[in-house]
Amino acid sequence: MVNRFNQIALLGRYDDERVSAPMAALSRHLQNRGATVRAEDRVAPLIAAQACGTAEQAVAEADLAIAIGGDGTMLYAAPLAARHDVPILGVNRGRLGFLADLGPEEMVEGVDDVLAGRYTVVSRLMLNAFLPGKAEPACLALNDIVLQKVDVGRMLEFETWIDGGFVNTHGGDGLIVASPTGSTAYALSCGGPILAPQLEAMVLVPVCPHTLSDRPIVIHSGQEVELRMGHRREGDAQITADGHLLGRLGPGESVRIAAATQRVNLIHPPRHDHYQMLRQKLRWGRGRHARPGDV
Amino acid sequence: MVNRFNQIALLGRYDDERVSAPMAALSRHLQNRGATVRAEDRVAPLIAAQACGTAEQAVAEADLAIAIGGDGTMLYAAPLAARHDVPILGVNRGRLGFLADLGPEEMVEGVDDVLAGRYTVVSRLMLNAFLPGKAEPACLALNDIVLQKVDVGRMLEFETWIDGGFVNTHGGDGLIVASPTGSTAYALSCGGPILAPQLEAMVLVPVCPHTLSDRPIVIHSGQEVELRMGHRREGDAQITADGHLLGRLGPGESVRIAAATQRVNLIHPPRHDHYQMLRQKLRWGRGRHARPGDV
Amino acid sequence: MVNRFNQIALLGRYDDERVSAPMAALSRHLQNRGATVRAEDRVAPLIAAQACGTAEQAVAEADLAIAIGGDGTMLYAAPLAARHDVPILGVNRGRLGFLADLGPEEMVEGVDDVLAGRYTVVSRLMLNAFLPGKAEPACLALNDIVLQKVDVGRMLEFETWIDGGFVNTHGGDGLIVASPTGSTAYALSCGGPILAPQLEAMVLVPVCPHTLSDRPIVIHSGQEVELRMGHRREGDAQITADGHLLGRLGPGESVRIAAATQRVNLIHPPRHDHYQMLRQKLRWGRGRHARPGDV
Amino acid sequence: MVNRFNQIALLGRYDDERVSAPMAALSRHLQNRGATVRAEDRVAPLIAAQACGTAEQAVAEADLAIAIGGDGTMLYAAPLAARHDVPILGVNRGRLGFLADLGPEEMVEGVDDVLAGRYTVVSRLMLNAFLPGKAEPACLALNDIVLQKVDVGRMLEFETWIDGGFVNTHGGDGLIVASPTGSTAYALSCGGPILAPQLEAMVLVPVCPHTLSDRPIVIHSGQEVELRMGHRREGDAQITADGHLLGRLGPGESVRIAAATQRVNLIHPPRHDHYQMLRQKLRWGRGRHARPGDV
Repeated sequence: MVNRFNQIALLGRYDDERVSAPMAALSRHLQNRGATVRAEDRVAPLIAAQACGTAEQAVAEADLAIAIGGDGTMLYAAPLAARHDVPILGVNRGRLGFLADLGPEEMVEGVDDVLAGRYTVVSRLMLNAFLPGKAEPACLALNDIVLQKVDVGRMLEFETWIDGGFVNTHGGDGLIVASPTGSTAYALSCGGPILAPQLEAMVLVPVCPHTLSDRPIVIHSGQEVELRMGHRREGDAQITADGHLLGRLGPGESVRIAAATQRVNLIHPPRHDHYQMLRQKLRWGRGRHARPGDV
Repeated sequence: MVNRFNQIALLGRYDDERVSAPMAALSRHLQNRGATVRAEDRVAPLIAAQACGTAEQAVAEADLAIAIGGDGTMLYAAPLAARHDVPILGVNRGRLGFLADLGPEEMVEGVDDVLAGRYTVVSRLMLNAFLPGKAEPACLALNDIVLQKVDVGRMLEFETWIDGGFVNTHGGDGLIVASPTGSTAYALSCGGPILAPQLEAMVLVPVCPHTLSDRPIVIHSGQEVELRMGHRREGDAQITADGHLLGRLGPGESVRIAAATQRVNLIHPPRHDHYQMLRQKLRWGRGRHARPGDV
Repeated sequence: MVNRFNQIALLGRYDDERVSAPMAALSRHLQNRGATVRAEDRVAPLIAAQACGTAEQAVAEADLAIAIGGDGTMLYAAPLAARHDVPILGVNRGRLGFLADLGPEEMVEGVDDVLAGRYTVVSRLMLNAFLPGKAEPACLALNDIVLQKVDVGRMLEFETWIDGGFVNTHGGDGLIVASPTGSTAYALSCGGPILAPQLEAMVLVPVCPHTLSDRPIVIHSGQEVELRMGHRREGDAQITADGHLLGRLGPGESVRIAAATQRVNLIHPPRHDHYQMLRQKLRWGRGRHARPGDV
Repeated sequence: MVNRFNQIALLGRYDDERVSAPMAALSRHLQNRGATVRAEDRVAPLIAAQACGTAEQAVAEADLAIAIGGDGTMLYAAPLAARHDVPILGVNRGRLGFLADLGPEEMVEGVDDVLAGRYTVVSRLMLNAFLPGKAEPACLALNDIVLQKVDVGRMLEFETWIDGGFVNTHGGDGLIVASPTGSTAYALSCGGPILAPQLEAMVLVPVCPHTLSDRPIVIHSGQEVELRMGHRREGDAQITADGHLLGRLGPGESVRIAAATQRVNLIHPPRHDHYQMLRQKLRWGRGRHARPGDV
């Protein structure tokens, strides 16, 4: 039987004991099946894999990346995979994730399914943020770009613009621009809707807005968002991408956010069901309280 | 050993097979312990209890009422117990309730604890609603009084007044006035806060309000609320108490809502912990999604 | 100068005095400009227009429909215009609407702009609902299709399915399926997001859901939603379209909802700005409370 | 005529030109009426008042404090007034505040009313926060004590305890403990309810909680709240009081929050109406969108 993928990069926090053992086991299994396993220099000797320099270099020449860990590892690995157009599969070592949807006990079987060509691929939109004065994007983010206050006890004041048209003036703790993937992450905690994973859309979610009618807005993924700080000296704002600090904005400065040209191809094992995963993660479906008429 | 309670009324939907068997078993157990068991005429012969007429009459002469079923049964039984100042214990036959907090497997042990004097009592505020032109309250409700639209596709317009002072004009599907007990029922689904069970307060929760800044308001239980329909002919509104229809309001009519002088004394077994129950019912405490930094 | 439109149907509640005068004035103005004005039989003689039978027949042969009234009139007129592929312009007689965006004082100037070809057109998605056992859609709705409880004090139990895949079991007052246009109507009152008007999407918004993690979901407009009643006998559910009753669902029955093939072309005068309208309607942009640091 | 108050401390940001002129005018007016005006050393000579050292010393011997500015000034002045049991009146120089409810054009008339004894007093609950290892409270706050994340992109993990009983484990951006006065400030932006100003209660409002059923809880003002950081090294948390930084909490550390024994007596002019102020600040009462049935 021929493998669908032969050059496989393994990614993950090898220092974490929940990750190292399965990573080594998976490396052996893949090599037994005839695949070449690639890893960063630091990890490769520990799992008998081919040392390739950095993690990104390990991915660059692979035809499949497997990230072992959880959703945090997937957020780290997604831009590497997207930049080199390599599909990625997530193996979860803890509780089920939104992104790493292959559980530990089904890892070998699931990987075998994928090697045998039994899988689905979903292309996920990613986001670029452009900082003031920079033509190159500062990030390639899978979940979200967030503008957030730095100083406690202060309210940010900023404006939203879409495709060059003024939308609104906001006061509050900040604003999230989330992809469909990110709509179930921080944006959901801030009152945003769930976006179907393949929807060509982004959502703007105000964080603790001062004006109670300042509600989430869903726009087309082809639109460009600009967040422009007010001129009042209110303390700076921070910009983060998937939780990592990109920089700060001072009064009058702005960040532009748009869908990236690169997308990440998430590989799902055959039994994957997006809404089944949401039901489990969001604990939908069983009730909270009796109503009259119950026994 | 002397029982704390000797005249015990058993209440519940005997027709439901999940209720009939434990009710009969509990009747035997209580009589074995020397208590007199009282029940309505229809049920008494089936559980070898003393027939007392109606369920309310069974409660009237009791020194303890035990309601077997779930929160729905507790909502039914609470006014009976409150009117005759008889404390009430809830036994749950299905999933754990907010009110019926003794599970089926611990029923006998829990009842023995209570008979032996090992229990706590929490006095719960109840609500009266006064319909137009009536001096007598139309209900004694444990959870809530709700003003709600009758006709679909229409928005109600009404005003709130507190202690004779105008508060607000509302458009929307209606408004809930909930007790602390009711704050975790329908009011919670409509965006209301949780009130600690012994707080001397009521909460007004707008249902799907038209104006997004029309937020829940928590007031003192000694205050009186008036909900006054607009004069525009928009279709009537319904008033319900704990889910049961009390009547309708036409244009310009109003309902007054105030804490009742009667309260219900809920008996809890020794291990009862209100927030432990909330953690379980609201599935608090374990997480939804990974954030960056998780493995 | 040549008019862009020559056969113009006027629609509106002529009985309402805020409508009759401007409708007559507009009829005169259009005829002075050389256009033929069409209206339903009942109204035509009163405004010196050509009587065409029903309002829909007046629209059928027109190349432009003008609805005078407010958003309620636009909801009524949109399906007529959509079925005959006639663009529609809304003139508002009361306060500014989401849909009827030409104010009374600018009516003549705005209509002249449109006749002269100075306008923009936005094609708005509309929704079909299919009742049990019917192959033909029961409606062509601009805002929303709503499943809602009939009996007060009861919670509906129903399931959502998308493109034949099970999504979730819901308990609560109902669920709204809204178009982008409808996202700022009833759905917004129930916690839904704002959808950009041209987004190819629908949003499912639970009404007062029992499970607090039961959040709005935005899906592609090409997807089909099925709402399926539970088998438990809980009282029927009502289905409404743009606020009008379509029918009821009993236990186990379902309604299917999908984007219609017809869309309505809304004509906007040159100065129309969607977000400016939202800022005004939602009273965005000025603040509610001071924070520390304010004087 | 005898003044009700004779020793009057004037407070406010004299550097702000919107404050300096009315402060000087008010000083003259009060002295013309025979009152002694007290101010801090820096300001006193500029308004011909008696120099008393610090602002707090100016308040200490006064029988009335008047704060000129806005709600920010009131938050600053309230603890000074509370510590010396001096009632306080707020004069607003900008837009109407929640606390400073005497507008600029009615300043003289309102102050005359107060001097003549025409006013109402509302005693407002204030909050103490106790930092680790400190027996003395770190603050006397009128609005709120807030636990909030320091590092962006990270979620705080912490526990709430009430009167020594465990309530919940929280993940998210933080938690607000607000007084009734603070319930319309930051807490409202985070989904909290409005508490009537004299309710003996505090509200715990989670900020962007990870678990969607993690809802605001209203408790009695006599209860003590403890917020205890998780042991996981997740970055510190900040504690602020009325927007001012009190300190940080490391892993396992906790802050205790309780109602202070001191309260502040807010003086309101005769025409003051709390709900009228809320209607204006929250822009209640006029509608957002048409529904079917509107013209």
